[in-house]
Amino acid sequence: MRPEQLRLYLVTDRGLSLGRDIEWVVSEAVRGGVTMVQLREKDIDTREFIALGLRLKELLTPLGVPLLINDRVDVALAIDADGVHIGQSDMPYDMARRLLGPDKIIGLSAECMEDVIAANAIDPDYVAISPVYGTPTKTDTAEPFGLEGLREAVKLSVHPTVAIGGMNEATAPAVLAIGVDGIAVVSAICSAPDPCLASSRLLF
Amino acid sequence: MRPEQLRLYLVTDRGLSLGRDIEWVVSEAVRGGVTMVQLREKDIDTREFIALGLRLKELLTPLGVPLLINDRVDVALAIDADGVHIGQSDMPYDMARRLLGPDKIIGLSAECMEDVIAANAIDPDYVAISPVYGTPTKTDTAEPFGLEGLREAVKLSVHPTVAIGGMNEATAPAVLAIGVDGIAVVSAICSAPDPCLASSRLLF
Repeated sequence: MRPEQLRLYLVTDRGLSLGRDIEWVVSEAVRGGVTMVQLREKDIDTREFIALGLRLKELLTPLGVPLLINDRVDVALAIDADGVHIGQSDMPYDMARRLLGPDKIIGLSAECMEDVIAANAIDPDYVAISPVYGTPTKTDTAEPFGLEGLREAVKLSVHPTVAIGGMNEATAPAVLAIGVDGIAVVSAICSAPDPCLASSRLLF
Repeated sequence: MRPEQLRLYLVTDRGLSLGRDIEWVVSEAVRGGVTMVQLREKDIDTREFIALGLRLKELLTPLGVPLLINDRVDVALAIDADGVHIGQSDMPYDMARRLLGPDKIIGLSAECMEDVIAANAIDPDYVAISPVYGTPTKTDTAEPFGLEGLREAVKLSVHPTVAIGGMNEATAPAVLAIGVDGIAVVSAICSAPDPCLASSRLLF
């Protein structure tokens, strides 16, 4: 993975997609400039998750946009995705790396400064600083880092970083100015009337 | 897997375990004669699922009782479980076999006669005829096979078979007389006041 592929990172959310097809949202977002996609599904059958993952892979691979799977290493392996994103309550990093091998992308959520420091002792491909701001997208998240916390986290981390949580047209400039490699966006793209336009506006 | 290991097959259910620890229920059940265990969890974090799986493996491996994981091939791989049980909405069989290799146990649910016939063209280690009777355990199951349907399914199948759905002390004798290799039990053990005693009574 090249760090510039983190620049505008779409994380899908079925519930925030206004009833529109995930594939459509992703294809519009990529047309607008999204550089990486994470398929996040919490409440669908494994078979349906795999089928959707395969359709997204077919869409994204020819465009050179990496597809990561949230949490589910089995789905990532089944569809030969580019990698996984794991949080602190998902599979431990070492197990995921062993199952996926050295070449797949593994992103890790850091929910506090201790997580950022702990990640320095292992070799994830990137660390997601989560959340920067409070957000309605996820209700189970930790205390927000805020801009100052983000600045400290980016300074501490030896890995490429993305900022997640409350990223939108208004918040992104200050966040990017701190020196993160990218922003991970959920509702500002998934819930946008025009996900293509919304994505292009997040590239600046 | 030896077909006799299917004889009394416990499928865990947290919601039906009356608030008692899954590990305790499993250890009591095995003390009572359970020959195989399937860990089924639908609503816990992957990390917690893995941790529980590891504790059950530590308990079961020394006793020679196989531990299967329901649906989640990633959890099975992470803990090096003995295999997985997959339903018709889980990972397709061929993908699961490719990821797990030829030596792991893969059990497959057949929810209708067509599934039983389709399973004859592949090589699962056993087929679970599901459900034999209507059951409060799963509300999303297909039309019950009934005793006559089970008889036909067992006759049709080229694989070892287990009966699941409504298996208890009253129903098991007629089911076993049909020639299934075993019965898969949920509430009759998980919800029993004494899971050890309940298990021993299901061995006849």
